[in-house]
Amino acid sequence: MNNNPSKVTPRILSGFMELLPADQMLFNGMLGVIQKSYERFGFIPLDTPVIELAEVLLAKAGGETEKQIYRFTKGDSDLALRFDLTVPLARYVAQHYPDLAFPFRRYHIGKVFRGERPQRGRFREFYQCDIDIIGDGALSLLNDAEIPSVIYATFTALGFSRFTIKINNRKILNGFFESLGLASQAADILRSVDRLEKAGQEAVQQELAGLGAPPNAAREVLAFIGLTGDTAAILSQLKQMQISNGTFHTGVDELEKVISYVSALGVPGQNYAIDLTIARGLDYYTGTVYETVLNDYPGIGSVCSGGRYDDLAGYYTNKQLPGVGISIGLTRLFYQLREAGIITPKSATPAIVLVIPQTSDLRVPLQAATELREGGIPTAVYFDDAKLKKKVTYASRLGIPFIIVIGDDEVAGGYVSLKDMSTGQTSNVSTKEAISLIRAKESANNGSSTDPVSA
Amino acid sequence: MNNNPSKVTPRILSGFMELLPADQMLFNGMLGVIQKSYERFGFIPLDTPVIELAEVLLAKAGGETEKQIYRFTKGDSDLALRFDLTVPLARYVAQHYPDLAFPFRRYHIGKVFRGERPQRGRFREFYQCDIDIIGDGALSLLNDAEIPSVIYATFTALGFSRFTIKINNRKILNGFFESLGLASQAADILRSVDRLEKAGQEAVQQELAGLGAPPNAAREVLAFIGLTGDTAAILSQLKQMQISNGTFHTGVDELEKVISYVSALGVPGQNYAIDLTIARGLDYYTGTVYETVLNDYPGIGSVCSGGRYDDLAGYYTNKQLPGVGISIGLTRLFYQLREAGIITPKSATPAIVLVIPQTSDLRVPLQAATELREGGIPTAVYFDDAKLKKKVTYASRLGIPFIIVIGDDEVAGGYVSLKDMSTGQTSNVSTKEAISLIRAKESANNGSSTDPVSA
Repeated sequence: MNNNPSKVTPRILSGFMELLPADQMLFNGMLGVIQKSYERFGFIPLDTPVIELAEVLLAKAGGETEKQIYRFTKGDSDLALRFDLTVPLARYVAQHYPDLAFPFRRYHIGKVFRGERPQRGRFREFYQCDIDIIGDGALSLLNDAEIPSVIYATFTALGFSRFTIKINNRKILNGFFESLGLASQAADILRSVDRLEKAGQEAVQQELAGLGAPPNAAREVLAFIGLTGDTAAILSQLKQMQISNGTFHTGVDELEKVISYVSALGVPGQNYAIDLTIARGLDYYTGTVYETVLNDYPGIGSVCSGGRYDDLAGYYTNKQLPGVGISIGLTRLFYQLREAGIITPKSATPAIVLVIPQTSDLRVPLQAATELREGGIPTAVYFDDAKLKKKVTYASRLGIPFIIVIGDDEVAGGYVSLKDMSTGQTSNVSTKEAISLIRAKESANNGSSTDPVSA
Repeated sequence: MNNNPSKVTPRILSGFMELLPADQMLFNGMLGVIQKSYERFGFIPLDTPVIELAEVLLAKAGGETEKQIYRFTKGDSDLALRFDLTVPLARYVAQHYPDLAFPFRRYHIGKVFRGERPQRGRFREFYQCDIDIIGDGALSLLNDAEIPSVIYATFTALGFSRFTIKINNRKILNGFFESLGLASQAADILRSVDRLEKAGQEAVQQELAGLGAPPNAAREVLAFIGLTGDTAAILSQLKQMQISNGTFHTGVDELEKVISYVSALGVPGQNYAIDLTIARGLDYYTGTVYETVLNDYPGIGSVCSGGRYDDLAGYYTNKQLPGVGISIGLTRLFYQLREAGIITPKSATPAIVLVIPQTSDLRVPLQAATELREGGIPTAVYFDDAKLKKKVTYASRLGIPFIIVIGDDEVAGGYVSLKDMSTGQTSNVSTKEAISLIRAKESANNGSSTDPVSA
């Protein structure tokens, strides 16, 4: 910051995230892992405009979205910034329908914008990392089962092991509330039930009564929500419930099928569970719903959520386009993991080596740098005049793991002086040998460094 | 498009790029190559907010920028979308100065926004891929020499071989025009000279006279601009010129030093040249300037430009922050290469294999898919009910190179049926063998597919 009145104070808006290099490297590493994981499942990358016509983006929206959206005019156009990646997907699929092959499996990693009231850990500009599978008219339930396997692979690749993918089916909830004559109060009841852990059984029961639930219905809701056990136990209890509601039973059937395939898709039993309290976006999801929690950090809430919807693009097209998808809110997740000390930055640069020329004829050091890069090793050169100590400090400040010093002795001797910054060990080797040594060390390190989480 | 009056027509704004999957894959491939190349030179990734305070973004701007910028209010805030990545860099470096290690080498790949009048091949939202090296108080000229080696490595990695990095030094131009007493007309003269090829010597000479250049000065300008030969010949002619202007001679010295190191940095002689007509951003660059042209497609213009500036962040800070950098306008470059047929999409998905289950018990096909992914092969599964022919058509429509069919016979026999879609060859192999076969074929293909350009 400067206080010179003729200068503009350099600053960003509150509610926006901007990272210093080491954190940016960490963030990009997570983003890259997610992208690679999505691609490994054959999801197709998509990139839609940040600015769209307000009419198009707001075709479906209302309430909070209308208030939060960044909307403005330019010339005659009523414009807005996208507030999620789902509405652009719906528009894209409706618009490009004839050119797409269905099921259309797409991922989209990009920034979205919401002018929310700023609060700690909430951002107005943030990355979402979405996958969706869209069917043309119909979409097999097996796709619902694949989603947890993508979540599992992605969070495992991010270095987590103790996380739980909670699975439910909205038809079970809807049918259950219908059977109690409480369909219209479902949203309020779920919100109330959400407070069970904090407020206690008594308080929630009173709240439910206040919502118009007769005492026995309130008891039934609490008993239903309280169903516990492994997936098999919960499914068996659900099937034994005396509920004469078709939607409920369809939901139980769907959940059972999804659960049966999640295991065949290689998701270990400890990483998924049925949770009958998961509802998600009440006016949007129509079947399977997911939330994912980190077992050791429940306070972070769901780190990956989504579900099945019957009608992606009804506001744009008459085509019936059912889909299933999830989203990782990476900006918020990164912020929370970083605040909690679960992840820590390692290096402030992609460079693995800093070449330090200590000779007036730079040809040899420059050729060494080129050779290192051709050997696949990200290499920076310290070009500016400075004492050796300053150059070495530069490398350690950025967390560059190796330095190569080339002075007149090295040039005359035809070798380079390689220093491993973590051990302090120095060796005089050929550039080729340096490449081998660095590669060996880095691949040994990468075995552990793909695991940002110690827990 | 639909004409149902109750629906919103799905569409995007004119002047915005949105790609179908195969083109998006091609675009992302280019972006990935550029990113990897920048990182190989040890540039640090940066990501700044898309939305900033208008006051901050417009600290320096005027004229066209003010007209083109997307600016709007939200609550009490006067906001704008970034129109380049240089102003955010200047703001970032000024704001985070104490936390950065200098020279600060950063790359930034991101969208910028300019509400230009829409014309073919111009976009209002487009990707820039920038690198800059910022010094604290001073920055060695060697950094200017490194930039062409980054350009060379990047365009080579993109598959180009016939391109020329044109290098000049603004001090030569400034000093030359000063020596003729034409310093204030320099911009107009350069614009006029730019038309030399089209308009001819005579017309340009008349224009120069109209700008106030005496006949002998006009002749000198044209002679100067017309200096030809290889870098050594041009440098020798420059040094022999009888010009008593210090700036001119400093420029010649700088250019000579930069050129001498470009070759040591591994850039072949045919890929760079001195071009005394290159000026670039007249009020911004102060030393070395670069433009890059594809030899076989001169109509595309410069595909990568930039230069040296003395004062990056003077609008935000009193610190003297000289720098040198370049930018690739990827959206425009992609559009032009695609229009000219220089690049063509290959596949519409990252998936290398489509697993097609033809059995009611999906456990074996699903396990095969998991094994393939664990073997590093991006794999999609066709989950929906359909005839085999439809499933195979899906794979060929997306350009997926291999399919694996698993029916009851395959399950009973403990093998999979692998089909190479390019040859039509089918073989019954274990999943492990399938992984080896696919890997071998893909790595053979990748040798050539890193070369999108046939020229």
